[in-house]
Amino acid sequence: MTRFEKSPSSLRELAGIATREALADAGVEVGSIEAAYVGNAAAGLVTGQEMIRGQVMLRPLGIESIPIFNVENACASAASALHLGWQAVAAGAHDVVLCLGAEKLTHEDKTVGMRAIGTAIDVEHRAELAAEVGTPPGEGEDRSFFMDLYADMTRSYMRVSGATAEDFAAVVVKNQHNGGLNPRAQYGGELSIEDVLSSRTVVDPLTLLMCSPISDGAAAVVLFSEAAARRAGVSGPRIRASVIRSGNRHDHDDPLAGSTALAAREAFERAGLGPDDIDCAEVHDASAPAELMVYEQVGFAAPGAGPELLASGRTRLGGEMPVNTSGGLLSKGHPIGATGIAQICEATWQLRGEAGPRQVEGAKVALTQNGGGWLEGDSAAMAVHILSAD
Amino acid sequence: MTRFEKSPSSLRELAGIATREALADAGVEVGSIEAAYVGNAAAGLVTGQEMIRGQVMLRPLGIESIPIFNVENACASAASALHLGWQAVAAGAHDVVLCLGAEKLTHEDKTVGMRAIGTAIDVEHRAELAAEVGTPPGEGEDRSFFMDLYADMTRSYMRVSGATAEDFAAVVVKNQHNGGLNPRAQYGGELSIEDVLSSRTVVDPLTLLMCSPISDGAAAVVLFSEAAARRAGVSGPRIRASVIRSGNRHDHDDPLAGSTALAAREAFERAGLGPDDIDCAEVHDASAPAELMVYEQVGFAAPGAGPELLASGRTRLGGEMPVNTSGGLLSKGHPIGATGIAQICEATWQLRGEAGPRQVEGAKVALTQNGGGWLEGDSAAMAVHILSAD
Repeated sequence: MTRFEKSPSSLRELAGIATREALADAGVEVGSIEAAYVGNAAAGLVTGQEMIRGQVMLRPLGIESIPIFNVENACASAASALHLGWQAVAAGAHDVVLCLGAEKLTHEDKTVGMRAIGTAIDVEHRAELAAEVGTPPGEGEDRSFFMDLYADMTRSYMRVSGATAEDFAAVVVKNQHNGGLNPRAQYGGELSIEDVLSSRTVVDPLTLLMCSPISDGAAAVVLFSEAAARRAGVSGPRIRASVIRSGNRHDHDDPLAGSTALAAREAFERAGLGPDDIDCAEVHDASAPAELMVYEQVGFAAPGAGPELLASGRTRLGGEMPVNTSGGLLSKGHPIGATGIAQICEATWQLRGEAGPRQVEGAKVALTQNGGGWLEGDSAAMAVHILSAD
Repeated sequence: MTRFEKSPSSLRELAGIATREALADAGVEVGSIEAAYVGNAAAGLVTGQEMIRGQVMLRPLGIESIPIFNVENACASAASALHLGWQAVAAGAHDVVLCLGAEKLTHEDKTVGMRAIGTAIDVEHRAELAAEVGTPPGEGEDRSFFMDLYADMTRSYMRVSGATAEDFAAVVVKNQHNGGLNPRAQYGGELSIEDVLSSRTVVDPLTLLMCSPISDGAAAVVLFSEAAARRAGVSGPRIRASVIRSGNRHDHDDPLAGSTALAAREAFERAGLGPDDIDCAEVHDASAPAELMVYEQVGFAAPGAGPELLASGRTRLGGEMPVNTSGGLLSKGHPIGATGIAQICEATWQLRGEAGPRQVEGAKVALTQNGGGWLEGDSAAMAVHILSAD
């Protein structure tokens, strides 16, 4: 994956860097790639390129003639592309495929990226949604509408769980510390709870440092069938479960009722594993409170016990089950259509023992969770992957 | 499928009509659908909805919680969605899936649809492409840039094959006749060669009637695994081959070198069939000359013999292998992200003997060919499907 940052490079340059790095890492030539699944969410509105985005990104690398699919699921676009590539390999349709997520959100007009993110809701029902959360979607210069949504969810979550702004700040402190150890992270470093709380309020109770930034970047993986991996002498993490769901109408005060919980439960079942088997995880901390909610939704903590799990130190580096060792979306950055595969990159490095100063000792099983869009009170798309070292 | 037309209905209404009709035809309830693959190409630029288009279309029908994938491949978006759904079923991942293609191209600003279609090229290289074909892409009020591309290809094709404007007009006469027999076609009726030749010149040698129109519409199919079809008591056409390719750099004067020829060859190989086994076909006649080129590319005619095949009458209704019995894109219409599945609907009706006055007697095997976008001298995405009656 590229470094995530506000980048001077174009979307196709970023995609090229990540793809070339993935091919080199896997030891395969362009000619070995049998199909490509490309996640991107915003290029149509940011760069003007719709419809054949993957072909445009991959042609300069000489990747042509094979099936190329352009896959969109808002912030879960890359995880959705990964799922489709995995399915093709699992089906025996292909032996070696490329899964790529790439996004360019920065633009000389700063509102362009924010407005693009605002199309990850039902745009015909902007007004109703705005009335629910108090602000018009997709029109903020200083934030995307998703931070209004997160703030609304966060207020409910505080009521149900007793979580406080200090808890959310502690998520940021942890993840920025991790990001400081990740050369590919957009930000990172040592912050105090007070630093986080005193940063500008974006939407109460979210401060600027509790919100993931606008980022550019790309991430890619090469997936092999077992037979092809043997032939190529490739070893490495396996995908033990790849689950995508769309959202559903549910009781929002029950963390076990929405798409995240359902996707995680299905993933654990398919992998024959449970939350206790997870050694490290990357979760969708697009806002800091989301990390605590996800702890409960995926079963790392009992309902309402997210803040307690964080306070216990288990999820920080050195704890028993570090979460967002990469820095997460908060610190590593969040080029939305790349995030789902960037999480897989971090899981891969952890399971290979290649995560350097972020290494989770003896990590054997990793979970990634990546959500996208919003529709009637749930993520429009939710992805959970479980990987094992072998 | 809906009727294709310049429709007063919204994208989600069109998608709803087609989806409900497909579910009713298959005799399945919403709750039986295990995953959905949704093709759309232009909504981001026409309606402002990006990122979660399928979820937005399907939620009003109560389709939620399942995996939903948004698939984009320009005019081959629906065929690409179909391929991914077919792959999931063929893989055993799902037993019953929905594949939907939907497009709304009309807009109160008439240039919006044309400009959207103009993003099916590499938009960063508009200028080079414009220089090649002589007109700026995506800026015409009276045509999409693709007609400039087709005109350029057509001039080469005329040089190589000896095809004339009269041949192209004869394609239009045939397909408009067929469309006149199809209640879902946007246009249709009896025209003379002279009517076609004397319609307004769009780009020489293409006249208005040689160009597919701007259309709205949706088409959907439900795919079953063999076991699920048996359980549900469903019989009907089978997908014998589903092939997607991206374009490749090749010798443009050789009809057997580009993505259409390669995809067709692969499809025939997978199906264990050849061009002589095809009883009827739907091909991508986005412009009239394209139908003749496709005859040669897929192997219905020898290189250069497209005009001769047309003149022989074999491809008209009543001939041995009718092509574009639905009216094709020229007469039925071309809501770009719906077209690939609309072709499958026509093939299905033909193979079931339900095509009414368009029925090809005893049709047992059908081929569909659907191309999308343009990149360095070839379609960016190319789809060929072969279906058999049982």
